[in-house]
Amino acid sequence: MSVSIIGTYHSKVGRLEESIYDLLVKAGKGALEDAGIEPGEIGGIWIGNYSAGGFNNQEHLAPYAPNIHPDLRFKPATRVENACASGSAAIEAAKNAIEAGEIKFALVIGVEKMTTLDTKGFTKVLAMASYWPDEGAKGMTFPGLFAEYAKGYMERYGFSHEQLRTMLAKVSAKNHTNALANPLAQMPLKITYEEILNMPDEKNPMIAPPLRLYDCSLVSDGAAALVLTSTEKAKTLKDEVVEISALSHTTDYLAISKRANWEFTAGKKAIQKAYQIAGITVNDLDFAEVHDCFTIAEILAYEAMGLAADGEGWKLLDDGTVYVDGKLPVNVSGGLKAKGHPVGATGASMAVLATRQLLDKAIGHQIKDAEIGLTFNIGGSAASNYAMVFKRIK
Amino acid sequence: MSVSIIGTYHSKVGRLEESIYDLLVKAGKGALEDAGIEPGEIGGIWIGNYSAGGFNNQEHLAPYAPNIHPDLRFKPATRVENACASGSAAIEAAKNAIEAGEIKFALVIGVEKMTTLDTKGFTKVLAMASYWPDEGAKGMTFPGLFAEYAKGYMERYGFSHEQLRTMLAKVSAKNHTNALANPLAQMPLKITYEEILNMPDEKNPMIAPPLRLYDCSLVSDGAAALVLTSTEKAKTLKDEVVEISALSHTTDYLAISKRANWEFTAGKKAIQKAYQIAGITVNDLDFAEVHDCFTIAEILAYEAMGLAADGEGWKLLDDGTVYVDGKLPVNVSGGLKAKGHPVGATGASMAVLATRQLLDKAIGHQIKDAEIGLTFNIGGSAASNYAMVFKRIK
Repeated sequence: MSVSIIGTYHSKVGRLEESIYDLLVKAGKGALEDAGIEPGEIGGIWIGNYSAGGFNNQEHLAPYAPNIHPDLRFKPATRVENACASGSAAIEAAKNAIEAGEIKFALVIGVEKMTTLDTKGFTKVLAMASYWPDEGAKGMTFPGLFAEYAKGYMERYGFSHEQLRTMLAKVSAKNHTNALANPLAQMPLKITYEEILNMPDEKNPMIAPPLRLYDCSLVSDGAAALVLTSTEKAKTLKDEVVEISALSHTTDYLAISKRANWEFTAGKKAIQKAYQIAGITVNDLDFAEVHDCFTIAEILAYEAMGLAADGEGWKLLDDGTVYVDGKLPVNVSGGLKAKGHPVGATGASMAVLATRQLLDKAIGHQIKDAEIGLTFNIGGSAASNYAMVFKRIK
Repeated sequence: MSVSIIGTYHSKVGRLEESIYDLLVKAGKGALEDAGIEPGEIGGIWIGNYSAGGFNNQEHLAPYAPNIHPDLRFKPATRVENACASGSAAIEAAKNAIEAGEIKFALVIGVEKMTTLDTKGFTKVLAMASYWPDEGAKGMTFPGLFAEYAKGYMERYGFSHEQLRTMLAKVSAKNHTNALANPLAQMPLKITYEEILNMPDEKNPMIAPPLRLYDCSLVSDGAAALVLTSTEKAKTLKDEVVEISALSHTTDYLAISKRANWEFTAGKKAIQKAYQIAGITVNDLDFAEVHDCFTIAEILAYEAMGLAADGEGWKLLDDGTVYVDGKLPVNVSGGLKAKGHPVGATGASMAVLATRQLLDKAIGHQIKDAEIGLTFNIGGSAASNYAMVFKRIK
């Protein structure tokens, strides 16, 4: 059975006034309103959230769902967590419930409220998504883990430090610039990669060598929500719907030391499997929203997508492929780097962005005649990996 | 599509040597071995866990699954959390994936390692399953929340404090005594309800009036695991299988103040719906494992099950119904009170206990010719509610 999206909501991303409870409720209400169905028709609610326990002292977030609408009281509500891919995990669980015939309509909400903690606090909470005994407990942070990816990339392909710095700055500048068109983005910036490279240390400090501040995604509050149903049902309700043509999920070892190399090995498998399920190749994609939690991750994603050969992802930043007007624009929303990264919301955010793009109602840059889009969302140091293909259906 | 269980594992429950990682791996290996299938045949892994973040600094636990066996690398692995009902939530997610046709075999593991923290620590982590701003943050604990249930029960039906104390002590004595037969139980005790009532304060201190120490479930480490597949497939692999004939999940408001009364309102709906799905009545049950996180909860569960009229649950403790040799034995394992309550594992533990009971391989007391069993697992102050009916199929 094919599953489609009939309603979406996306909050502003940034340091927001709203509590996690308010973000959850607004997102749920927004998606229901957009779907145009009665709340009582919802068969189940899935909440994607990384660590409301760590950020907000609130585990067991799912039963807050009845606060969206009294008709959701007594409906099954479930929290799903796979680190920064929790939003995608919630979509997967909801899609399975629909395909199983257990429910007709699902409400999926990705939500995170991270700005409650200071730098030390959120760094620790995020580090709990690594393999704690060998990584977090030993002082390893997420910038540190992705710095390992960056160093491994440099070493394997023989890039100089300057070459690496340049390609990473290009990702950063592209995404900050893309965010200028996105009214919900946290950090839109008119900036060039040369400006980033030439910044003094105090403006672009080293976070975990070789990664600097401008290589890191943002600490954000935000929420995104979707209403899902069978494609068959969706077509009876909407003139145009967006189908989840593929959802592929792979897992690699939690501990980065257990993996053979510094590629997105499991991520590549997830994306290639998604293409196969959807019956497409990378050439069929009109855009992609990928997990640029750190700039190096976007380059590794290009290669996992098969958009560039291994070690050649950087070329796409030079030949124009991945820019808004390129052959395959990547992160036109601004991505995690500039749209922001409320971690448990991110997978749902990507799905909302893809859906709106395909409905010709983009949040930010509209890709003309977009028909097929990809989202690629990872959790931890790429231990959890989700690839989804979205198609517009008339 | 009907889903059945073809493999189970249950750890010892208590203060264990093993880390949460070791518990997870042993449980996964044990269930796979019992199922007799190759690890590579597993299509997905679901981990039920309440708060490894709070207890063990480890969110994002699911990707530890490949450590069970290298052939699980790249398989989808997902953590599901609904407080003390996380184990049931994981079963629901896995069942949906099988019914959706996404996978053939699922591995479900419920796991929690709670003894890492001192009393103040685990009390806070558990309180994060309440509605934090109005409950946990204001000093409300789980004993406190269930003390409200106990007081509400007394008031509504006009029980004296002594009457209440007596019925609660009977639940406690029954479950501690039942645990004597369970080799995996944390706190087996040869004890009578009179002995509990007559205990001096220092041996049975007040925790949250009217609840005393002997009314509270235990702080535990433990894990339980199951391998699920379609009933059709299961029959080709095993001579006798246990089917999940119904799985019903309801949600009430997270904040207890938003509910109308001190009953298990949503729990009753979950159980009654489960009977309906399975095509049975309470009279068809041969046993039940129910959520006695506090003694009052077991009495409320009798009433939610329809085993007694509202306000008359206590009668079942006097007429013998719920004892091992009674008409409908409840918590023959010892329950959360005496078997122990590794919170995220409990739903999976109940399902394993029910399965083994129906296969005539009970962990502890064997109910003769048991054919149908119920599990009732709640999260938080009964905001998340899961009822499952298990049937033996030859």
